[in-house]
Parts: sequence; C-alpha cells; structure tokens
Amino acid sequence: MVLRPLPARLLAAWPGWRTACARGASRGPAGPGRPRAGPGPTPERYRVERLPFSTVSAEDLAAFERAVPGRVVTDPGALEAANVDWLKTVRGCSKVLLRPQTSEEVSCILRHCYKRNLAVNPQGGNTGMVGGSVPVFDEIILSTALMNQVISFDEVSGILVCQAGCVLEKLSQFVQERNFIMPLDLGAKGSCHIGGNVATNAGGLRFLRYGSLRGTVLGLEVVLADGTILNCLTSLRKDNTGYDLKQLFIGSEGTLGIITAVSILCPPQPKAVNVAFLGCPGFAEVLQTFTTCKGMLGEILSAFEFMDAECMQLVGQHLHLAIPVQDSPFYILVETSGSNAGHDAEKLGSFLEQALGSGLVTDGTMATDHRKVQALWALRERITEALSHDGYVYKYDVSLPVERFYDLVIDLRARLGLQAKHVVGYGHLGDGNLHLNVTAEAFSKALLEALEPYVYVWTAEQQGSVSAEHGLGFKKRDVLGYSKPPKAVQLMRQLKALLDPKGILNPYKTLPAQA
Amino acid sequence: MVLRPLPARLLAAWPGWRTACARGASRGPAGPGRPRAGPGPTPERYRVERLPFSTVSAEDLAAFERAVPGRVVTDPGALEAANVDWLKTVRGCSKVLLRPQTSEEVSCILRHCYKRNLAVNPQGGNTGMVGGSVPVFDEIILSTALMNQVISFDEVSGILVCQAGCVLEKLSQFVQERNFIMPLDLGAKGSCHIGGNVATNAGGLRFLRYGSLRGTVLGLEVVLADGTILNCLTSLRKDNTGYDLKQLFIGSEGTLGIITAVSILCPPQPKAVNVAFLGCPGFAEVLQTFTTCKGMLGEILSAFEFMDAECMQLVGQHLHLAIPVQDSPFYILVETSGSNAGHDAEKLGSFLEQALGSGLVTDGTMATDHRKVQALWALRERITEALSHDGYVYKYDVSLPVERFYDLVIDLRARLGLQAKHVVGYGHLGDGNLHLNVTAEAFSKALLEALEPYVYVWTAEQQGSVSAEHGLGFKKRDVLGYSKPPKAVQLMRQLKALLDPKGILNPYKTLPAQA
Repeated sequence: MVLRPLPARLLAAWPGWRTACARGASRGPAGPGRPRAGPGPTPERYRVERLPFSTVSAEDLAAFERAVPGRVVTDPGALEAANVDWLKTVRGCSKVLLRPQTSEEVSCILRHCYKRNLAVNPQGGNTGMVGGSVPVFDEIILSTALMNQVISFDEVSGILVCQAGCVLEKLSQFVQERNFIMPLDLGAKGSCHIGGNVATNAGGLRFLRYGSLRGTVLGLEVVLADGTILNCLTSLRKDNTGYDLKQLFIGSEGTLGIITAVSILCPPQPKAVNVAFLGCPGFAEVLQTFTTCKGMLGEILSAFEFMDAECMQLVGQHLHLAIPVQDSPFYILVETSGSNAGHDAEKLGSFLEQALGSGLVTDGTMATDHRKVQALWALRERITEALSHDGYVYKYDVSLPVERFYDLVIDLRARLGLQAKHVVGYGHLGDGNLHLNVTAEAFSKALLEALEPYVYVWTAEQQGSVSAEHGLGFKKRDVLGYSKPPKAVQLMRQLKALLDPKGILNPYKTLPAQA
Repeated sequence: MVLRPLPARLLAAWPGWRTACARGASRGPAGPGRPRAGPGPTPERYRVERLPFSTVSAEDLAAFERAVPGRVVTDPGALEAANVDWLKTVRGCSKVLLRPQTSEEVSCILRHCYKRNLAVNPQGGNTGMVGGSVPVFDEIILSTALMNQVISFDEVSGILVCQAGCVLEKLSQFVQERNFIMPLDLGAKGSCHIGGNVATNAGGLRFLRYGSLRGTVLGLEVVLADGTILNCLTSLRKDNTGYDLKQLFIGSEGTLGIITAVSILCPPQPKAVNVAFLGCPGFAEVLQTFTTCKGMLGEILSAFEFMDAECMQLVGQHLHLAIPVQDSPFYILVETSGSNAGHDAEKLGSFLEQALGSGLVTDGTMATDHRKVQALWALRERITEALSHDGYVYKYDVSLPVERFYDLVIDLRARLGLQAKHVVGYGHLGDGNLHLNVTAEAFSKALLEALEPYVYVWTAEQQGSVSAEHGLGFKKRDVLGYSKPPKAVQLMRQLKALLDPKGILNPYKTLPAQA
C-alpha cells in the first residue's frame, strides 16, 4: 500500500492536544458544564392549563410502594433534578418519582395510574432539548434509571437487547469490548438512556453513516397506557408479519407507550477512524467540500459536521479548549470509518490534497490516534455546553435544503442586531440538519417574539422541518403545524386517543394543545 | 496502488458468459418465464367467505367513468391478468379495473367506494408472492400503472420523488443516468412498482448494504379509505415533528391506505462493483465465509447471497443458464460496491485468497465487467422463475438465526421424501432470510398439510419470522400468530379499524380472518 504524502501541517501535532478537555464531559444532570440559574414553574412562562387528572393520594403512594418497594421517591430535594430540564428552561412540580426495575413493575404502575387517572411523565437521562422529559405540572415521574441491564448480545450478528434505562455510553463501551459500535452517538451519551434515544428518535453524529433508528432498532418492548405489555422485542433483521408496531413508539416521546426494552443492530467496529478538522473560507466552499467529500470518500465517510466561527469562539471562551485552526469563518469536521487503514488514509489524503489545492479548505489538522480523535470531536460535541455558559439559549433544530442552510443564520443576525448576544449555526450538514442557537443574558419575551414564529415560518417556506431531531416535547408542540398538514395532525390525535384514551402518558407533549 | 495477484482461475473468462441469458428477463405479468397453468377461483382452494360489501352497479360504473374517463376496464379478457397472481396460485373474479393517473383521481374513486361500501384491491406490478396483489372475490382493482411519473430528483442529495406506479427498473435507469442507484433491487424489478415495493416493505438484494425502506423512504403521499389525501411527501433526511405516519403504510400491504407517491433517498452510484460466485463444500463453510467476508470486506460488502446445489441445478435445467462453478453443494454470491476500484479489488483479492487458502471456498469465478456482473446475478435472481417451471411451488420466506438457517431445508427433505419433487433453499444469508421452496407436479392438499403448520412451528421455535420480506397478503394472513403475540395482533386490528372503519381496503389480506 502506497500512502500519498499529506501536507505536512495536516499531520503536525496540534499544540492544544494535551490540554484539551476530554470528550467524556458530556452533558447530564450532574455534568460539570450544567447551567446554574433555575427557571420558575413552567406555567408561569408558558400558557398551559392543568388537565383534570387526579392528584396522588396516600393510597396511591401505598400502592406504588407495593409495586416498587423502597423505590418511591418523595423527598423534594431528590425530586428537584428530575423536575427541571437540563437546559433549565422548564420546571415541573411533581411530588413523586418511581424507580421500577422491570417491565412488570412498569406495567403494575401504569395499571394503577390508568385506573386512577393519574398522569405519568416517563424520564430517561433527562437530556432532552424541548422539555419533553420533565413534568409540566405534578405528573408522576417514572424513571428508567434502574432498568439498566443488558439482556443479550449476539457476537456474530451484533444484535444487542437491553433494558430501556441503559446509558448510551455504557452500551457503547459494552459493545466496543466485543468489536462492535452503537449505531448512534450524541453529545449527551454520558447521561442519555437508550429508551429515551428511541422514544425521541435521536439522530446524532452517526446518522450519516448508519441511518435512522427506524432502520437499526429491530424490536421494542413497550408498556401501554393501561399497563398492557406489548412484546415486539424480536431480534430479526427482516420481519414482514403484519404492521410494524414498534415504529409507532419510535419518536413518539413517551406519549403512546413507555419503552421498557430495545433490540438494536450494532455495526462492526471500524478498524480505522480518521478525523479531519478543517477551515473553509466561505459557506459556498463548505458545500463544495461536502460534495467533493461524498465523491472521494464514498462508503468510508461517517460524519460531516459543520460549525461557524462564532461557535468555535464560544467553545474557546467558555470551555478553554484550544481551536486547532484559527481565523476561519467556517469549520468542518470530517470523519472516516473503514476496514483498511491504508486504503482510508489514501482516500482521505487524496481528498485533502484536492480540497486544499482547489482552495475549498484553507487550513486543517488531522487525527487517527483515538485520544486525538476524541479531542477533535469534543470541539463539536461540547458546543451545546459552551452555549449554556453564555446565557439563556434559544434553541432551534431545523432541517433545510443544504443550499439555504446558512442563510437563516445570516438573516437572523441582521434581524436581531444587538438584541442577541450571539447567533450561531452548526450541525449535521450531511443530513441537512442545522442547529441554530441564539444566546442572551436572560430570557426575554421580546427576543422570543422576534424569533418566533419567524424561524418557523422561514423554515416552512423552504419545506423544511421545524424539528429535525430534537422532537417537539413540551416547548415545540404548538409548532407541529408548520411541518405537518392538518390532516396529518388529526390522524396523530386519533392515534393518541387509540393508544392512550385517557391521555395520561406524558401529557402536554408532542401534540399541540387543543383549541 | 498495488493489486495483489488473484488466483488465475478466478479471473479466467467463464465460457458461459456469452451464452448466458441477460439479467433483464425479470418476472412480471407478460414475462417470458411465467408459469402457464391457471388456478381455479380462490374460494375453491382456500376457506374464505365474501364479506358483505356492495357489488358494482351501473351507477357505480358511471361514477368511475366520470372520475377516470376512458380508464374504466370491464373487458373480461383484459381483467384476466389482473385477477390472477404471478405465481398462478390465486384467482379473483373482479369485474372492474380502474386506472387513475393522479392522487386526486384515487381520492375521488375511494370517496365513492367508501360511501357505497365497495371493496378495493390496490394493484401495482402484481408480482407479490402471497396473493396480496389480486382480488379474492370481486373487489374493484385499482391499478397504479398509469401513475408512473417522476415528480422530482435532486442531483445533490439523491432524493427522488415519484408517483407510486413507477416501475422499479425504470427508476433505476433514471437515477443511474444521474449517478445514483435505487436503495433496493429485486428479481421482479422489470414489473414491480415502487408503490407496491413500499406497501410490502420489500427487502431484496441491496438490503444488506442500504438497509430497510423504513430508513430510506423519506416521505409518502397516501389516500385513506374515505378518500382523504394524506400528504407526508417530505424530502428531508431528518424530521421529528410528531408521529411518523408514513411508517403505518410501509409494509401494510394496501390495507390501511393507498400509497400514491413516494420520496426516497438514493445512494450514490458506486464507482466499482465486483461480483464473486463461489462454491463452498458445506454449510458450515458458508457461514464461516460470511464471517470472514464481513471482517475483510467491511463497508464495501453489498450482498451475500446463498444458493444450494438443487437451486442451481433447476436454473441450469429450466433456464439453460451455464453454471460457472460445478459440483458444489453450496454456492454464494458476494458483491462489493465501493468508490475506489483498486482498493476494492485489493480487499476482495485478500478475502478470496484467504477463503480459498483455508478451504472455505473450493472454486469460484469473479466479474467486474457490467455484463458479466449481470450474468452472475441472473443465476441468483432467476431462481424464482426456474422454480415456477418445475411445477407447483410451495413458497416460504422465513427469518432464522443463521446457525439454523439450512437445517430446515435438510429437515424437510427427510420429512417429505418422495412427496416433493424438489426442496431447495436459497436467499439473503446476510440478512438471515431464507427462501425455502418445495416443488411438486401439481398442487396437493396432502403435501400442503405436510408442510403447514410444520414450517411455521419450526420457525416460531427458533424465534424466527414466518414472513421475512414477502409479507402476509392473502395466503399467509392466518400465520401471523406464529410471529406476533395476541396483544400485537389486537393492536393491529385496532389500527385497521381506525384507518379503514368499513374494511374496504384490500380485504381478506394481512390480518387473520376473524374467528
């Protein structure tokens, strides 16, 4: 194998490697980068009225104690973290959190809640971005934290079956020890649960290569509103017997049933991973680099992430990470994953030569060593954390045609002027998924009104999606209509009524408030 | 790039290349290989009773004529082909076939049928294997044949939007001219419609590499039972706004709605395709070859198909195709698709050296030239056609753990003895999907009873699926319970009742007959 020479500076050690913060510091309730200021109760900030559910009585608590002995939490201190979302933008006032260990216990809890008309908020790692993972009022919090067992792993097929409360990063470690990887990866990996990932149809950093959870999730076990356990936990790559019920629950944010176990197909661990962190002189060049990349890297391209200069400035400022490429208006992170290190290096080398030679890329650095790969990824993955240190964050997560991808950021900067502290754009360019974030010193209604519905109207005009991967949860449920026609919304309501006739599962989420 | 030397015989021209029948002769209503004998009416062979739908009146015909002027077919000769399935195992007695060109026309037809309680059988290319694509009694046939327009194609993203009646092979040609490929391919490509592919969640030959239609279909337009047009025809890779309604219709065999348009993500055309056709001395060696293959070919492996000796014998005997490797008990077809011909040849060369050197593979031939690649694929793709020339075919399409994959074939040969003409096994080993076929001179109830429920029980004992990719249609609807628990079947019935309260859409299909 002949390796073509790479430009020397791409292979030179970047001085920041040793000091860069490790990738592991991902977000989560106890994470170091958690924003500090807490929000007031949700109904104070958002217009929402409590639905006529029952309230938890002493008899209910006794029934829960029988269902999950010693695992009924009512201590207000212990409940605080579970009532507030990670972004500290919404706050529920639940007075009870239940910690079942088995599907049967979940079933027993729901049977009781259904009978008593008690509302339930399923909660995984509480890392959601749209307020879907915390109660709005006093819903009972049903935590999957203790449902954290791997049920089986097939070392030939790579099929993993596990309980819903397994933390994504732990599953990653588990399958990596067996030469596989999880088909999804995201910044919140250290806290998020696989059940929550599936319930929100999480996209993340490996989507470009391994596709949607709708393809990689092979089976689910779900507990329905009335306590029925629906066992669709098969481990088959192909199964066309009847309607694919598990699809109903993927991405339905716990509003149609509670996912208790997951069967998922893990790809083989690539033998070689390379990451290049590159600077581009303009957005047109970012797009051309993407097209060149797809053509020259083909099947080994596993990520194409994009960040603007303002993102990188905030990462440097708030997290003290060194940025290996300076003074570029746009940055991209390209990852390859393949089965032959020599072949991959040759493909990547040719691509970089071409991109540098034609001026699409002006500077860059490359890593193959695991630790350095992680440090480059941290620059992308920790943007959310950096933003949260910058003040109150207005978050938008939209799908747009890539040609118009950055226009929305430019447009908003002009529109908001000094009202905003920062307007930044980054995201999964390879999937057409822009994360648009606006920061301000504190929450301001005026700024919110300058942003909404403007951002949604803009997105709808491009036939985009107003929620590419974060879902709708509580905070975005009323914008569903920007991306779906009334007849689709009506059918969604009918499905909700069929699966959860009393509406006790994660109320006030996903579907718009009834007029 | 240094190409390692390959064993000379693998690169030697195979004498059969020039005489081999071209791959294009795929199955379809007018195809050359279509079996000749016709079945009697379905209710004579299967226990089924007509449900109390209305019958088509002169007023109905006049209404249809207004909806689709000049495209109401009532000529019995013209209806014959649409009443009988491709396998000639079931026959309906529909007296009217409608040929809409637009979704609005489909809507208009269904609005009328819904009001009048008339049953409707949606029909694409009529290439299904389970009797799902023809009427059972006198259902109105709604053909998508004239809904064959490409709506748009994005040459950057590879997203194709088209009407449901586009023939898969024509779409393949269309996107190939633009350097993309369809994410699915199957033997019936010359006749099957993309709408039918989606309605049956077709698997096929590219599943191993490009995954399920549940991941690659980005949007659908569907007409519901009452004529409502549900527009979920988005072209976004990621969209988490509300429940993913299109998933309800993928694989529901036209029983929940009629798919009228499809948005689908096409992968870039690989720059290099190689096919190796290999002989293995035993099934254990087939499995070891698969594991070796996955490890050494990694991301360029695009198909791993398996055929037993009896399959190849029938292909030679009935279709007069020359088999390039003789006297092997098992055959495999390995395909690679990649972006660098040199790298791919090197990977494939190393794999073949290893497989031959260790005795996993005893003989083989290889092709890179497009025509030769097609000729090798024909040996696999035309097995169905060869079997149909052998007599009446009992077809099973199961998912099994790969370790037990071939045991069912061996077991059945012993069980059936001289009752069967041939018992053959082939299929998508890479997906755990076995096609098990039994031929006999003519349909025999005794043979059917020796096969069923035996095959289903055997499969269920392995936690397999009794229909991996063919669906249930009419002929397999009563075996759903072997792969799905009663609570899942009950929820499927509730979904059917919600979406199609009068049950007019493709009745007698997918769901078991009510007790």
